[in-house]
Amino acid sequence: MKSGNMNQTLQALLSPRSIAVIGASENIHKIGGRPLHYMRQQGYAGKLYPVNPQRAEIQGLPAFPSLDALPEIPELAIVVVSGEAAVQTVRDCARLGVGAAIVIASGFGEADEAGKRMQDEMVAIAAQAGMRLVGPNSQGLANFGNGTIASFSTMFIEVPPADGPVAVISQSGGVSAMVYGLLRGQGIGVRHMHATGNEADVTVSDLALAIAHDPDVKLILLYLESLTAPEVLAQAAAVARRRGVPIVAVKAGRSSAGQRAAASHTGAIANEDRAVSAFFERHGIYRVDDAHALARCAPLYLREWQPQGAQLVVVSNSGASCVMAADAAERHGLALVPLAPHTQAELEKRLPGFAATGNPVDVTAALLTNSGLFGDVLPVVATDPASDLVLLDIPVAGLGYDVERFARDAAAFADTAGKPIVVAAWQPPVAAAFRAVNVPTYESAAHAIASLAQLTAHRALLREVAAEAARIADSANGAPPLRLATAHANAPTRTLSEAASLARLAASGIPVVAHKACHSAEEAVAAWRALGGPVAVKASSPDVPHKSEHGLVALNCNDEESVARAWLDQNATLERLGAASEGIVIARMERAPRECMVGAHWDAEFGAVVVVGDGGKYVEILRDTAVLLAPCSEDAVLRALSRLRIAPLLAGVRGESAVDTHALAKIAVQVGRIMHEAGGQIRSIDLNPVMVSASGAVVVDALMEVAVAP
Amino acid sequence: MKSGNMNQTLQALLSPRSIAVIGASENIHKIGGRPLHYMRQQGYAGKLYPVNPQRAEIQGLPAFPSLDALPEIPELAIVVVSGEAAVQTVRDCARLGVGAAIVIASGFGEADEAGKRMQDEMVAIAAQAGMRLVGPNSQGLANFGNGTIASFSTMFIEVPPADGPVAVISQSGGVSAMVYGLLRGQGIGVRHMHATGNEADVTVSDLALAIAHDPDVKLILLYLESLTAPEVLAQAAAVARRRGVPIVAVKAGRSSAGQRAAASHTGAIANEDRAVSAFFERHGIYRVDDAHALARCAPLYLREWQPQGAQLVVVSNSGASCVMAADAAERHGLALVPLAPHTQAELEKRLPGFAATGNPVDVTAALLTNSGLFGDVLPVVATDPASDLVLLDIPVAGLGYDVERFARDAAAFADTAGKPIVVAAWQPPVAAAFRAVNVPTYESAAHAIASLAQLTAHRALLREVAAEAARIADSANGAPPLRLATAHANAPTRTLSEAASLARLAASGIPVVAHKACHSAEEAVAAWRALGGPVAVKASSPDVPHKSEHGLVALNCNDEESVARAWLDQNATLERLGAASEGIVIARMERAPRECMVGAHWDAEFGAVVVVGDGGKYVEILRDTAVLLAPCSEDAVLRALSRLRIAPLLAGVRGESAVDTHALAKIAVQVGRIMHEAGGQIRSIDLNPVMVSASGAVVVDALMEVAVAP
Repeated sequence: MKSGNMNQTLQALLSPRSIAVIGASENIHKIGGRPLHYMRQQGYAGKLYPVNPQRAEIQGLPAFPSLDALPEIPELAIVVVSGEAAVQTVRDCARLGVGAAIVIASGFGEADEAGKRMQDEMVAIAAQAGMRLVGPNSQGLANFGNGTIASFSTMFIEVPPADGPVAVISQSGGVSAMVYGLLRGQGIGVRHMHATGNEADVTVSDLALAIAHDPDVKLILLYLESLTAPEVLAQAAAVARRRGVPIVAVKAGRSSAGQRAAASHTGAIANEDRAVSAFFERHGIYRVDDAHALARCAPLYLREWQPQGAQLVVVSNSGASCVMAADAAERHGLALVPLAPHTQAELEKRLPGFAATGNPVDVTAALLTNSGLFGDVLPVVATDPASDLVLLDIPVAGLGYDVERFARDAAAFADTAGKPIVVAAWQPPVAAAFRAVNVPTYESAAHAIASLAQLTAHRALLREVAAEAARIADSANGAPPLRLATAHANAPTRTLSEAASLARLAASGIPVVAHKACHSAEEAVAAWRALGGPVAVKASSPDVPHKSEHGLVALNCNDEESVARAWLDQNATLERLGAASEGIVIARMERAPRECMVGAHWDAEFGAVVVVGDGGKYVEILRDTAVLLAPCSEDAVLRALSRLRIAPLLAGVRGESAVDTHALAKIAVQVGRIMHEAGGQIRSIDLNPVMVSASGAVVVDALMEVAVAP
Repeated sequence: MKSGNMNQTLQALLSPRSIAVIGASENIHKIGGRPLHYMRQQGYAGKLYPVNPQRAEIQGLPAFPSLDALPEIPELAIVVVSGEAAVQTVRDCARLGVGAAIVIASGFGEADEAGKRMQDEMVAIAAQAGMRLVGPNSQGLANFGNGTIASFSTMFIEVPPADGPVAVISQSGGVSAMVYGLLRGQGIGVRHMHATGNEADVTVSDLALAIAHDPDVKLILLYLESLTAPEVLAQAAAVARRRGVPIVAVKAGRSSAGQRAAASHTGAIANEDRAVSAFFERHGIYRVDDAHALARCAPLYLREWQPQGAQLVVVSNSGASCVMAADAAERHGLALVPLAPHTQAELEKRLPGFAATGNPVDVTAALLTNSGLFGDVLPVVATDPASDLVLLDIPVAGLGYDVERFARDAAAFADTAGKPIVVAAWQPPVAAAFRAVNVPTYESAAHAIASLAQLTAHRALLREVAAEAARIADSANGAPPLRLATAHANAPTRTLSEAASLARLAASGIPVVAHKACHSAEEAVAAWRALGGPVAVKASSPDVPHKSEHGLVALNCNDEESVARAWLDQNATLERLGAASEGIVIARMERAPRECMVGAHWDAEFGAVVVVGDGGKYVEILRDTAVLLAPCSEDAVLRALSRLRIAPLLAGVRGESAVDTHALAKIAVQVGRIMHEAGGQIRSIDLNPVMVSASGAVVVDALMEVAVAP
């Protein structure tokens, strides 16, 4: 049920022709009363059937004593009754052939073991009947496009609804209500506001996939505490990208305390946080940290601006605001490039002599006596190549200022320049004037700039996602779509020996250190002679993955005696440990300017997760690494490497030449491919160090862990 | 005039007995009209003298044709007239013995060269007469403690003033108005709101020093674009610390674009940003990034809470808010520690079965039916050792919720628990209920948590400042107060040779590598023999500071021939370069687990600035270093080292033993002391690497730059 004909199966939830409310109430302030009230208020056009054995009429509608008494089988059932009564209702729905049920009652999986058993029973009943189940412990679903308000949220009373282009889909009812309220408070219409609760069946991802097809939706906002079937969300993201609909998501529970809280809240299983970020990045989903951040950028997305770059022009009536905005821009990775000489010349004609025209543009307090200054300046700024983005920062206005005119001038820019413009104004009446003409407006320049940076970064990410998809499709071994095998998920694992690991990597075309597994001291000495220089002597046993801890690595051996002695010593140690030996490896000592690492592990949700970056023995501590999901392209790895702290070192500094990051990236790509194609049979690969020089990269130490065949 | 009897000299600005307004206007919406209007409105009790040759009466007060026509010499003159008339007015004031003048007119130093000349003339006139000058290009000063509103800000019309415990002192009029407005919007009273403009004489620091003595001021907020006399601000900070008054500051112009904007705005000279941060840290001033951040933490400071630690308890009616708050807490360095078993047991008695009691505490949507839950929970939380700080996060409330009761319960905690509590509530009426009972309330949990983290960090910083002062005073060479010599500021400099640098360091008790400067190959070979192991051979010439670039470093020489050859080669190179030789240094090759660095340079404003941290050739790129001002204690250096990325490596990881950070810190302290005591004669010291092992630290390479005696 997790994929396939999602739209049909979720039709009953999002656009039912008839709805029964089991546990319906006359009181519109009760949970059983609110959905009916809202649906009638919002003009739901289908049939509404209150079910309540105590009453003949509820909220002016004829009421029915039971589901069986209804004149037709409702497409959707809203289950407000709790405990065993809820289970029985689900059973009745399944028997009758109801399309979907929303179980609003709580006290199930989130409460205790008994509740969890009831929840599992409901899921089994629904699955057998092919009925979809939302909840339990769900605030419900609300679709303002057709008045299906199967939700008891009080927020629709606090902040009146209006249909619009945004969808809010959340595990948490609280977050969905809050984001809805924040959007509506800015005058933005919300079509979908859904809360999935315990997600016993229908998940946020399922709804996202269905809603990505809604032609009126222009922005999808998600709140997740766990990500258990990412392939559905990946499908949703693909549909949304095709339609040009951005998806912004919170995946909470990043910290250990947050994970503890999420486990207690929705029973969420902890995802590996860096893999979640890599997954979002791969699918063009922009990750933010909280409910405010979900709502914040909406006005910018809804203008459907496509910034051409990350160069910001700041225009203000305060010199200090110019300075602080310039600082904030740098923090957010936006560049303030001086305007072109002819632009500055044009601005100088329009501004008082003491104004600044370079960028930031400070029109000064002269704005108080000449209300046209913003209108004079903005069209000139619009033509400058350095103005991909514009911030109009107004820390002081009010009495004596023609704020309406400022707003008209900003709106003219917004409507005609084809470039994003945002306003920072903390005075509520000033901000209101700009919002009234649909110019995105923030209380602080910091938030305004953060939103411009988000829009720019998200558009760039979406371009990169498209490019990466093309690169992967074009590559010689055209990768299959993301495929998550679970066959090996619970199998025990074993480590391969150094020799076996290196052999397997070499067979996949990965450059490994010149070496030979030797079964006698004489063979070891011969191998040293053949390699013609200093060697490392390393025991190779599947039983001893951490060789150094047992003195099973000798470096820089460069004469017959030391090679032979190392072989004999290590052989004796292996015998003492009772460890199987697959020969003792004699490997050339590699030297290179950079010690990097490539690793990969199999994640139950995300499949092959590749890690690449700075290597050496402090990898875990300095943690200057990037995480990507496989399969990935060399270009994607190179981009990830370029964001590391060591990136300047890889590129060559202080007269050193650049190292061959392409060769390093190729290894990472290939490691990801091997893992991906093994579909979980290989559990982890750990290559550290990978020596990277100006002319290539070579794996020096390798450790692989594989599932033992059942 | 920059130090000394500040309070008397600024008395005329902050508390004058009589005020003349030169260029006074009848129109209260004109710059010349507003100060008079505000002062009469605010009940200024001294004498007010409008000066305007065109009118006999202004705003109901008798007007005078000139300063000379006044019945007394005014203590303060507000100069609204511009250009040459302003200069003439300043001249008249000086001649008559006016105590201070505020030049509001713009078009001076910030405009062009001619303006700068007029400004310099005003400063010279004032200085000669012992008159203080604010501005020019100043929005003016306002003291609501006594109605001295020598300011034309329109913000007093937008947001009505009320005297209170906060002082806002800013170079920028825009920022002072904005911070005033943000504070007043939260109902916080503001006593001082001052804008210094071009700071031709009186600076933000001068006013901060005067105001730090105001017994009614509990919080000082500063906005700076340049910091030209930090010793005055240091004095202000000392006074404020003694009185328990926190100072929070923005120093804008951190980015290169920001510096460009600041130069154009107030002609600010760029300060070295990390030195500014070190200066603030040293004096207990908390640095934030913008005007919003200046105002944000005020409600917490004003409650005068002293958090005992950085452990946060989150209480919410939404499980998702609990999860996001836990994540945000980690981002801000606050710990969510599970509550003690007996606390949890107490909470379980008071909460529904499915509530979470561990921390976060999720009272769940049951709050809707039981409005007493927060009141039941908070007193229990108050007794738990893990509750240094409390966040009450309410993402959903409104109809059906007893918000007034929630507010009373939070206020009871705030008033009795002796621990900080903040509320996150985005719905304006909900937030208003908490603010009404003086509970600090934020729109977002992110800002609420950031403010708790700021309060905690600032209190900890202030304790550290006190401890550091005691440590420095206690140290054997009791350091003098911060002293900034300018004698050597413009002197040309020269570098010392390696040998001379090492000798000077050794003479100061700094451990340097065993070495000898040798004047012949034979002497070099003898030195190698005496050192008894591999050596480095390094030319030592004041003319060649960057030796490696000329092949003047040979490492790992360990036989007679290579030592002699290196000496001869380098000697030949020096002769070819025509460089003076002070011998060629034969130094023991040092090996140690960590290569660190200690550097110092002389800053025209801050004196000796010490840098310490990760060393090696990538110092500038990886930049894992800390900056401190000298003199500093070993403890202060150790604390700074503990915040570096390499801190875990210094502490010992993966079975390695810790290195001797004390020895490294001692070198940094001593380098700072040498620089400090030289008072600018030494311009820079660059020790890299300093080899740090488990048993000590030793300087291997040294380069010093000194001022050439005139």
